[in-house]
Amino acid sequence: MTWTIALRDKAFKEAALARQAKLTKPTGALGALEKVAVWLADIEQTEAPQAGPAAAIVFASDHPVSHLGVSAYPREVTPMMVLNLVAGGAAASVLARACGVPLHIVDVGVEAYPTPSPGAGVHWQRVELGGVVGDLVEEDALDDEALWAAMEAGAQAMDALPEDTRLVILGEMGIGNTTPASAIAARLLGLEAKLMVGPGTGLDGEALRAKCALVERALKRTAGREDALDVLRCLGGREIAAIVGAMGRAAERSIAILVDGFIVSSAALVAVRHDPRIRDYMYFAHRSAEPGHARILEALEAEPLVDAGLRLGEGSGSLTALPLIQMAAALHNNMATFEQAAVPDREL
Amino acid sequence: MTWTIALRDKAFKEAALARQAKLTKPTGALGALEKVAVWLADIEQTEAPQAGPAAAIVFASDHPVSHLGVSAYPREVTPMMVLNLVAGGAAASVLARACGVPLHIVDVGVEAYPTPSPGAGVHWQRVELGGVVGDLVEEDALDDEALWAAMEAGAQAMDALPEDTRLVILGEMGIGNTTPASAIAARLLGLEAKLMVGPGTGLDGEALRAKCALVERALKRTAGREDALDVLRCLGGREIAAIVGAMGRAAERSIAILVDGFIVSSAALVAVRHDPRIRDYMYFAHRSAEPGHARILEALEAEPLVDAGLRLGEGSGSLTALPLIQMAAALHNNMATFEQAAVPDREL
Repeated sequence: MTWTIALRDKAFKEAALARQAKLTKPTGALGALEKVAVWLADIEQTEAPQAGPAAAIVFASDHPVSHLGVSAYPREVTPMMVLNLVAGGAAASVLARACGVPLHIVDVGVEAYPTPSPGAGVHWQRVELGGVVGDLVEEDALDDEALWAAMEAGAQAMDALPEDTRLVILGEMGIGNTTPASAIAARLLGLEAKLMVGPGTGLDGEALRAKCALVERALKRTAGREDALDVLRCLGGREIAAIVGAMGRAAERSIAILVDGFIVSSAALVAVRHDPRIRDYMYFAHRSAEPGHARILEALEAEPLVDAGLRLGEGSGSLTALPLIQMAAALHNNMATFEQAAVPDREL
Repeated sequence: MTWTIALRDKAFKEAALARQAKLTKPTGALGALEKVAVWLADIEQTEAPQAGPAAAIVFASDHPVSHLGVSAYPREVTPMMVLNLVAGGAAASVLARACGVPLHIVDVGVEAYPTPSPGAGVHWQRVELGGVVGDLVEEDALDDEALWAAMEAGAQAMDALPEDTRLVILGEMGIGNTTPASAIAARLLGLEAKLMVGPGTGLDGEALRAKCALVERALKRTAGREDALDVLRCLGGREIAAIVGAMGRAAERSIAILVDGFIVSSAALVAVRHDPRIRDYMYFAHRSAEPGHARILEALEAEPLVDAGLRLGEGSGSLTALPLIQMAAALHNNMATFEQAAVPDREL
C-alpha cells in the first residue's frame, strides 16, 4: 500500500513562523502552542490555520490474544463498551460532546451485540473484514486479507468524513490491545518486551509478568521482520491496522492527525516507518501513563501537550488536548502584532 | 491579615471518589482529570461539580526594579500591554474569548496611559494604592500601606465577580516581575538565587547573571525573614500582592483557583505559607518553561496538567488549561457507571 502524499509549499510554514515572531509576546513564550499553529498552517497550506472542523473515529475490535489472559477486564467488555460509546456514556462520548466533535464508532471485528441506535452527533458502522485472525503469540494476528481489509476500512472511514474536515482524532477500543501495541512497538524499535509491556488497564504482579512473557514469545516468533506493514500483520490488531489506514488517508487528504496515547502511537509508529512523510501530519496529544509510551514518543521525536496521566484509550487523550489545538490556532490568527498594538519589541 | 476559610464536609470528596470508581473506565485511567473532579466537588460541596462560571483577573503593575535592567523588554511595555489586553490583542484576551470567560484587568500601579474603552467581556479598572514602593534590592518593594492596599485590591476584585462564580484564573502583567517572584520564592524556600532566577521574557548571558546578582543582594538584605506576608512586602510586586489577596478571598468564598505559571505560583507559595488551608483551593494549570517554576511546584506538591513550555504570563497557562478542568467536570457528571452501561467491571 502506497500513500500519495502531496508536496507542500514551504512558504506557509515560513509565513507562520514569521507571524509568530511578530505577535505581542516574548519570542517563543507560547511554547508548543506556537509549534501547533505552524504545524497546522503547513498542513493546511494557509496563513489562517484552523483546528476544525474536527472529527473523532474510534475503531473497535476483539483480540484473540485476550483469551490468553492479558487484560484486567474480560473480553466481553469490548462489545459492551462499543454500545456505551454509541449510547453516549463512555469517556470519549462525553469528551466529543464537550468539544462539539462528531464521534464515529467503526467496528472492525467485535463479537455479536445488539445493533445500536446512535444519537445526535454519533455514527456507528460495522465492517466485515474477512480473512483470518490469530493470537499473535503462536500465529500471525492477521493474514493478508484481514490486514488490507482493516487498513481499507480505516481509509474509508476517513473518506466518509465531510470534505471540509481539517483535523482528525483516531481512537480505539479493544480489550487486550496493549498487547499487540506493545509487541508492534517493541519489534519496530528493536526493544525487549519488558521495556514496552505495561499494566494496560491495570495488570500487575504475576499477570503482568505473564503478559510480558507472551509478548516475548511473539517477538521471538517474528525475529528479523522489519517491514512495518509486515510487523503490523504479524502482531496485529484489526483496529490498529484500521488506524494505520486512516492515518495514511488523512495525510493524502491533508488532514491533521492528533495522535492519542499508547495504542494509537504504536499505529503512528507503523505509519511513519511505512512512509516517513506522514510524520509531518501528526501532533501528539498527551503522554500516557502506560510506561512504554515514552519510548514510542522518543522514537518519533514527539513532545506531547498534555501530561495528565491518562491511560484510557478511545481517543480520550486527543479529545482532551483538542481545545489546546484550537487555542493555538486562535492565538495565531487573533493576537495583535507588536506593530498593531504599538508595543515596543525587545531590542535584539 | 487573617482569612476566614470554612470547614468543608468531607462527604462530598468521598462521594466523588466513590463515583469515579464506578464510571466505565479502568480505575484511575483518567489520571489527573479524576483528581480535578474530586477537587471541585470538595470545594463546591456538591455531587455535581462545575468548572464555571469562571472568570479571569489580570493584575498589572510596574516594578521599580525594572530600572535596574532585569528584563529583555523596556518598562514602557507594561502600560502598552495593559492597553493591548483591554483592546483584545494580547494572548490572555484571545484565550479568554476562546473560553468564553470574562477578562478583568486591574491596574494596581502602572504609569500613566490613555484611559481605555473595554469591549464586550472585558473590564478595566485602576486602583490607586498609596504607600511607598522600592526596588527590592536595596529597599523594600512595598511599605505596609502599599502591601495591604494591594492585597485589598485583589480581594475587592474577587468581590466584584458575580455571586455564582465557581472558578477564578489569576494572571499578571508587569515587566520585570520574574525578579520579585524569584526573590520571594527563593527566600521562602531557602534557596540560592541561582536556583530560582531564570530568563523570564528572554534574558541570557551577562544580563541573566546581573539579574541573578540583584536577587542575591535582595536575599542577603532580607536574610532571616520567614513570615510570608513580610517576605511579600520586602520583595514585593504590587500585582503579586494583589494576587495573594485575591487567592485569600477566593478561598473565603469557596471559589476554585486555577494557578498559572511562575509569578502566580510564587503568589500561591506566599498564600500557602500564610495559611496552609488555602492549598486545597488550588489546582496548578501548567508547567512553565521558567526553570524555577519546577521548584515551586515541588514545594507545593503540585502536578500541573499542561506541559507545553509556556512562559507568557497574563494567566495564559490557566486559560489554556481551563477546558481540561471543564472536561474533568463533564466526565465526572456525565459518564455512565458500570451498572448503567451493563459493562462487566474487572474482578478484584
